[in-house]
Amino acid sequence: MGESYGHYHVFDDIVLMPFINSCNVACGFHAGDPLVIKRCISDAIKYNLEIGAHPSFPDRQGFGRRKMDMDPYELEALVGYQVAAIKGVTESLGGQLNHVKTHGALYNEAAQNQAYAEAIVEAVFAISPSLYLYAPPNSIQAEIARAKGLKVQLEGFLDRRYTDDLQLVSRKLEHASIHEPADALEQLSSILNLNVIKTFNGKILPFHADTFCIHGDNPKALEIIKLLRMYFPMKA
Amino acid sequence: MGESYGHYHVFDDIVLMPFINSCNVACGFHAGDPLVIKRCISDAIKYNLEIGAHPSFPDRQGFGRRKMDMDPYELEALVGYQVAAIKGVTESLGGQLNHVKTHGALYNEAAQNQAYAEAIVEAVFAISPSLYLYAPPNSIQAEIARAKGLKVQLEGFLDRRYTDDLQLVSRKLEHASIHEPADALEQLSSILNLNVIKTFNGKILPFHADTFCIHGDNPKALEIIKLLRMYFPMKA
Amino acid sequence: MGESYGHYHVFDDIVLMPFINSCNVACGFHAGDPLVIKRCISDAIKYNLEIGAHPSFPDRQGFGRRKMDMDPYELEALVGYQVAAIKGVTESLGGQLNHVKTHGALYNEAAQNQAYAEAIVEAVFAISPSLYLYAPPNSIQAEIARAKGLKVQLEGFLDRRYTDDLQLVSRKLEHASIHEPADALEQLSSILNLNVIKTFNGKILPFHADTFCIHGDNPKALEIIKLLRMYFPMKA
Amino acid sequence: MGESYGHYHVFDDIVLMPFINSCNVACGFHAGDPLVIKRCISDAIKYNLEIGAHPSFPDRQGFGRRKMDMDPYELEALVGYQVAAIKGVTESLGGQLNHVKTHGALYNEAAQNQAYAEAIVEAVFAISPSLYLYAPPNSIQAEIARAKGLKVQLEGFLDRRYTDDLQLVSRKLEHASIHEPADALEQLSSILNLNVIKTFNGKILPFHADTFCIHGDNPKALEIIKLLRMYFPMKA
Repeated sequence: MGESYGHYHVFDDIVLMPFINSCNVACGFHAGDPLVIKRCISDAIKYNLEIGAHPSFPDRQGFGRRKMDMDPYELEALVGYQVAAIKGVTESLGGQLNHVKTHGALYNEAAQNQAYAEAIVEAVFAISPSLYLYAPPNSIQAEIARAKGLKVQLEGFLDRRYTDDLQLVSRKLEHASIHEPADALEQLSSILNLNVIKTFNGKILPFHADTFCIHGDNPKALEIIKLLRMYFPMKA
Repeated sequence: MGESYGHYHVFDDIVLMPFINSCNVACGFHAGDPLVIKRCISDAIKYNLEIGAHPSFPDRQGFGRRKMDMDPYELEALVGYQVAAIKGVTESLGGQLNHVKTHGALYNEAAQNQAYAEAIVEAVFAISPSLYLYAPPNSIQAEIARAKGLKVQLEGFLDRRYTDDLQLVSRKLEHASIHEPADALEQLSSILNLNVIKTFNGKILPFHADTFCIHGDNPKALEIIKLLRMYFPMKA
Repeated sequence: MGESYGHYHVFDDIVLMPFINSCNVACGFHAGDPLVIKRCISDAIKYNLEIGAHPSFPDRQGFGRRKMDMDPYELEALVGYQVAAIKGVTESLGGQLNHVKTHGALYNEAAQNQAYAEAIVEAVFAISPSLYLYAPPNSIQAEIARAKGLKVQLEGFLDRRYTDDLQLVSRKLEHASIHEPADALEQLSSILNLNVIKTFNGKILPFHADTFCIHGDNPKALEIIKLLRMYFPMKA
Repeated sequence: MGESYGHYHVFDDIVLMPFINSCNVACGFHAGDPLVIKRCISDAIKYNLEIGAHPSFPDRQGFGRRKMDMDPYELEALVGYQVAAIKGVTESLGGQLNHVKTHGALYNEAAQNQAYAEAIVEAVFAISPSLYLYAPPNSIQAEIARAKGLKVQLEGFLDRRYTDDLQLVSRKLEHASIHEPADALEQLSSILNLNVIKTFNGKILPFHADTFCIHGDNPKALEIIKLLRMYFPMKA
């Protein structure tokens, strides 16, 4: 969320907020600007959401979805800066930062690239050791975070398909995304109820997740989330 | 300080650090990047400096020295974001943010423009009411900050000339800057010992300052500061 | 047109193209990126539009709508670069650049600020003396362009209101924009048929325009243009 | 050249210009801004240099030296835009664009990555089929350019070491660069007189180059070039 930028409007984050528990706020490097970010956090506080920082490679034109080579010590500074900014703005509005989840190409890299994963974990830990890190199941990032003493929440995507390696299907491929609300519901149900997921190729593999993600810029995000909430209502 | 940017190197901040008590760290909007900023703060902590955030208009190409029209609520978010980032990075390195001082065109505007001054004060106060604001003597910004309850440190420049209105002489004019160490020493002595300043036109006007600034990118910064320290040594 | 940016989508330029003769293409400084620009120009060539470069202050976050102080020689280089890029890309696609129209705050400044107007005119003339400059009626910019030998097309806006000084009503004010198609039609009719315009205050003032502008990001742009074309059809 | 940026000064290009025949001008994406670029080209015209565009990945903070994943059609637009801008600015100053040489990580990628090499060649050809492309000997880029009908100049670096594959030694490794003027002279002599090069590992391999490059930001650039010119003087 918070992915608009100046005149560029992505999505009315607020219409999704009644239906979710947790959100990831752009930090101004792949998307967002200070005003957009502040409004988003302010709204998230009103809706009592768990607020996360969503740091990224510095690539606004590519929306953080292009892999960049970066020295790990530079990456560590980059992530630390972004998390610090979101944490401070959140606290200035009376809220509290709950977690960090990396964005786009950085998320994908950190799942597999040890140096990147370490840099991110070091950065988050230095900002605050009590932050959660959201990371994919079976990822190097989750492992390294736990070893460092960070709390980890394993994350499943409800609007993205998985490969047989339990990686996200690349956005360059068709069928990377799930658009049908019924398919998202199926993915959620199978993970939550059965602890399995059906991959892109139809394989059924074990999969556990503590938190679930839908992209705010998915054009059917609202429709999907409303369907999910019929079956898995918000807790009172 | 912290005004390098990627491959672009401005100044070895660290050579000045033994001679100063306090520094203002670029926040990444007119200068600096996350790695440069982190290194600068890390060095400042080693030298036991009081660390300030140095927020700016979002204008890297113009080094924050070009006035921009900006809505005050946007400015407030902009300043809040920058201060939050520097505060968080400083704390992640074991330090503490001491103050905020706006940069360049924003500093000049905030001295005279009430809406800008209010936006800055609101932003700083929301991040932390215990931060100092560095502001020019006799400025609207100092007044508004005190009215809000922020602590203010009045700031005198040792390498810039003043107009008869006690504004900084515009950088577009010759003689805006003081290059001769002896002239900087004269300015410091007259303020500290006599509470007066000699303006660009030779007028002698009352002037009080609590803190003094020399620009890190002044090519004679080191020479100036070394001379000053012969007359006004660091306190033990 | 061409004002999308990476993942940020503004408007499907192509749906307006069948209804217009001429377009202004963002140059990548307030909006647009190389791919968006190239696609836009390619489409404009297919629709046989007169293609203009739409240079701006370097302020993507502010969409070029914030006034910036800038030295005229810097502005001249800035405009020259942008026009050169659009001209070269247009020619690489088999088209020809027809005109230049400055964007947003730069357009407003150039109407009144002689140094800015001169810088723009010099820049355009140096790139090609056969380019048209689109400028507001009664503006310094139109005058200076003619004195330099540039061909000028006077431009009227159909989706913006005018002050009694024949300036555009600031976007900060309500009623800056015309949203009702019928009102745009009235403005066009009165200029084209009667050579007058009704200002924001209801005054009727002489007004001549050679070319008419509707903003691609006006949400009713298509509706407006379709109505206008019922009364003022495309020439065969 | 032209790699300064606003307040950030890299090098006085002009002091090297009397000693060289050809230069590559930053296009504003890894370095340079419109004013810096214009001044650089203006100086190059005075010194009668062959002027080249030096397009890059869009990564100013990384100075274009970080590899980025990019779709080839996006890369093609990116390179076309940059070359168009430099060509137009050069012509507006009375000069003529002679060649294109990609920068940094893009140069390295294009030597080996066919899709990137094709995108670059298509972009250059579309802007003008009479431009030269500077490319490394034995590179895919040189091959594809020739197949397309572009004229190619093979380029040797005088201040960089080569691997046994005749690739540039990565800047992440020590000894990537040649700092000793005598070593640069040796590299030039062996290529020019013997058509061989000594690699990083001491192997002697065949190597032919039509044009030679020294980096303007090499701190010893001037010293190196002056020594070279004692042995290989400018032609009258």
